[in-house]
Amino acid sequence: MIAGIELGGTKTVVATGTADGQVMEEWRFPTASPDETFAQITGWLRERGTPGDIGIAAFGPLGVVPGRANHGQLLATPKPGWAGFSITRALAAAFPSARLTLETDVNAAALAEARLGAARGLDDVAYITIGTGIGAGILSGGHLIHGALHPEFGHLKVPRMPGDSFAGVCPFHADCLEGLACGPAMAARWGAQAADLPADHPAWNTEAWYLAHGSLSLLGIVSPARIIIGGGVSQASGFHEKTGALLEEIAAGYFTPLRQTPYVVAPALGQQAGIIGALLLTDRHTGPSNP
Amino acid sequence: MIAGIELGGTKTVVATGTADGQVMEEWRFPTASPDETFAQITGWLRERGTPGDIGIAAFGPLGVVPGRANHGQLLATPKPGWAGFSITRALAAAFPSARLTLETDVNAAALAEARLGAARGLDDVAYITIGTGIGAGILSGGHLIHGALHPEFGHLKVPRMPGDSFAGVCPFHADCLEGLACGPAMAARWGAQAADLPADHPAWNTEAWYLAHGSLSLLGIVSPARIIIGGGVSQASGFHEKTGALLEEIAAGYFTPLRQTPYVVAPALGQQAGIIGALLLTDRHTGPSNP
Repeated sequence: MIAGIELGGTKTVVATGTADGQVMEEWRFPTASPDETFAQITGWLRERGTPGDIGIAAFGPLGVVPGRANHGQLLATPKPGWAGFSITRALAAAFPSARLTLETDVNAAALAEARLGAARGLDDVAYITIGTGIGAGILSGGHLIHGALHPEFGHLKVPRMPGDSFAGVCPFHADCLEGLACGPAMAARWGAQAADLPADHPAWNTEAWYLAHGSLSLLGIVSPARIIIGGGVSQASGFHEKTGALLEEIAAGYFTPLRQTPYVVAPALGQQAGIIGALLLTDRHTGPSNP
Repeated sequence: MIAGIELGGTKTVVATGTADGQVMEEWRFPTASPDETFAQITGWLRERGTPGDIGIAAFGPLGVVPGRANHGQLLATPKPGWAGFSITRALAAAFPSARLTLETDVNAAALAEARLGAARGLDDVAYITIGTGIGAGILSGGHLIHGALHPEFGHLKVPRMPGDSFAGVCPFHADCLEGLACGPAMAARWGAQAADLPADHPAWNTEAWYLAHGSLSLLGIVSPARIIIGGGVSQASGFHEKTGALLEEIAAGYFTPLRQTPYVVAPALGQQAGIIGALLLTDRHTGPSNP
């Protein structure tokens, strides 16, 4: 039996399925305390059998590199009760023989879109999500990128849009990419939620400017063959085309990968990307990961 | 017999040595036309034996992903005579049974510094070089990053230093990172070569600002455990400390990898990084790469 878990800040998804990403049965429920949430997950799974493989896509910051002391642990998250909680230990207590494979939610979504979604067949893909914050998952040469921790894409800096004097909302950096372009930044700039701003509102030009510059940084550092932009604040009609056109303009003919069009696209798997990614992870188990 | 080749825009190095990066014998000479240069390389090697493995670190743009049609080829380089030249074909003609492993010069230098130099023992390392241009090689989770082409780090954009109105020298983008901070940009800004600017000249504050912001983009995208800055325009005393301090300031306590200090360092292998990296590549052969 193969299981997938998507652990989000507000909702959790647990599923049974296949290592090639087919969901057989799934349950979505609000994320509660760590103990309660994992009791619900393991209880639901136990009713269905004993999983041999479990793929987990979780919010972060999270120890994702097998062999490091913090592997499987939630790190310095502001979410009450979760900092220091070991996901792998909780699952190993319930299913001692299961093989666990753990990833950040954005990396799992990047993998799912690369295998079954908007970047099908590509091995070099970046997946940006814009919501309460801005994050990115990266598949590079078929490997998911971790680095020393894992990327905190939203907190890099890009040039200001000419004439933009908005202070930014990031409590650490004020005007980093996230501080200028996340959902709360849009709400503070325009006095309305992103979902309520019409597609021809100037807000989307500003948003496209910052996302095009963030995409240019991805191009210069990991050279993806396609960039997917998802998340709640990306759903205005024409937003991906606008961002792609601006990216092409600022790239000024320089970056070869841009010749593949469309280069900036919407996700194809929508809300399912995380749980599909979690199932796909079970095929990428690289060694003992139980605590 | 194991051979390494470093093919640079102005100089070429050919060596015999070991797969763990020990140079036994090497020859440096000016890079000429493709045919002439490769006749010199293969002639020198033939006098010493028949290499079973050859690692090649070359300038770019370059097809580096095994299995792609352009593998082993110099792509749209402005260097006269080199665009379209197949390095792997030239070497396979001379040594049909040799296994060839090919990388960009910056990736080879990143690998060499990670194995034997300033980032010894780390699997997540970025190597920035500042000279005529600005480039970066990246080792991530032990894998060298290629992406759809390979990173063109110098051409991403970062915020202007407050008060800086220099137009930039990049013929494509004017004020991309390379346009604002490469060697020719320094010369145009200050009317002197970088090597002639004293360590307390304000030029180095400007240079540190741009490199700190470029480093922040690396942190946000590949989360390296250490960043090495090399190349001709990085040798002023205190430049790495200055860049590291500024990076810490703009990161504002956010990025965990920065807790490892020093985080921004000078290379340890100097001029030898490329050829040592070429030898190390012979240990990373992943499949048939002869054309």
